[in-house]
Amino acid sequence: MSRLLLLSSSRAGTTGYLDHARSLIADFLEANPAPIERVLFVPFAGVGKSYDAYLEQVRPAFASVGIEVESIHQAPDPKAAIHEAQAIAVGGGNTFALVKRLYDADLLGTLRECIAAGTPYIGWSAGSNIAGPTLCTTNDMPIVEPPSFITLSLVPFQLNPHFLSGKPAGHNGESREERLAEYLALNPEARVVALREGTALRREVDTLTLIGELDGESFTRNGQQPLPAGSRLDHLLARGASR
Amino acid sequence: MSRLLLLSSSRAGTTGYLDHARSLIADFLEANPAPIERVLFVPFAGVGKSYDAYLEQVRPAFASVGIEVESIHQAPDPKAAIHEAQAIAVGGGNTFALVKRLYDADLLGTLRECIAAGTPYIGWSAGSNIAGPTLCTTNDMPIVEPPSFITLSLVPFQLNPHFLSGKPAGHNGESREERLAEYLALNPEARVVALREGTALRREVDTLTLIGELDGESFTRNGQQPLPAGSRLDHLLARGASR
Repeated sequence: MSRLLLLSSSRAGTTGYLDHARSLIADFLEANPAPIERVLFVPFAGVGKSYDAYLEQVRPAFASVGIEVESIHQAPDPKAAIHEAQAIAVGGGNTFALVKRLYDADLLGTLRECIAAGTPYIGWSAGSNIAGPTLCTTNDMPIVEPPSFITLSLVPFQLNPHFLSGKPAGHNGESREERLAEYLALNPEARVVALREGTALRREVDTLTLIGELDGESFTRNGQQPLPAGSRLDHLLARGASR
Repeated sequence: MSRLLLLSSSRAGTTGYLDHARSLIADFLEANPAPIERVLFVPFAGVGKSYDAYLEQVRPAFASVGIEVESIHQAPDPKAAIHEAQAIAVGGGNTFALVKRLYDADLLGTLRECIAAGTPYIGWSAGSNIAGPTLCTTNDMPIVEPPSFITLSLVPFQLNPHFLSGKPAGHNGESREERLAEYLALNPEARVVALREGTALRREVDTLTLIGELDGESFTRNGQQPLPAGSRLDHLLARGASR
């Protein structure tokens, strides 16, 4: 039943916070069978700013398309808030912090259950990372230790947001492609879908579409394959196709 | 008792594998109270190449300064090999793979014990990361899940190798400084020492020196401070100074 909008990033190029995402979010929420007036925001990836401040950063983008935002950190009963949510939005920041806090509050199961039952899910950056089976293809620094790397499995492949090809000149760190090749060397049954900034995946139950003006990339142990901008990727939802 | 040589990277600029490190390694091993003819290499950070191939990649640099290399993956009893080692060298690659394999083989305690007893330790990149208390300031992708983020604590501060200031133009991922600031936001008692490529830390029991031609950087919750190239950093070894 899952409906998902998985955004690579909160910004595309030099645009403002979630600016490029407003129309994508509006389209996605308007297409929901049940009307949506507010979303439940999960600010747990935020580090170095308060959850209140993060909520205020997110509200204008949603307000501009007529959607109110309430945050789970202000909910007296977070599990009940997830069950009652018309839609869920998980923001970016640090994936390890997000996953640790979701485990600490024991919310992963409730999220999986409600999203499977049809609650639409919007994620960006870290919030998109956790839509895959594990956090293993995050770009983030492991600043805290979560109890597990296992995440939501809303899609059967790994996500790599903020995809950027190559590496800085004169530096000997790995390129993104090299990092993902290392992941696949140790996880040979997996597929990684890499999303350039400004792009997104939209899942409508059994369809999957790459949204935005830039191609994505699919990585498996057999190599790298471009995913054309705007293309349908329904075949990636078949579990056997990727794992 | 610890004697440590913690190199930021296996390469500096466009030099060959460990080229820039040869004289540093030779100086470090020649200064040992007991003469050193061979080192025990730990190839567990290597991903996407065999341990045998990694060993052959490392041997020439050590051979050029008259040192033989044996690898722990060929030792019939890895713990005994550590106990008997004249010196230990842990190479770069992926820090998560390195830490997972060290835990899987139950070698962290043996390493700590022997290094504390005076066995000299050489690390580069991931091999330097694990000299700190945790892997939390690695730059690597979490391609596998280790049982714990806790590492060797050979120094009381975190290491960040391959330090590079700023971020690629037009990209919205975090800069290295922003990543380390996020680490410190959630670990406010910690200190991170960031090493630019081509530089190293050398510990001789209770002295610590920054080696190489570039400055390092020290990060705490109170901000960033340059560590001048060639300077003595003994004060960073005082546990209360950093944690």
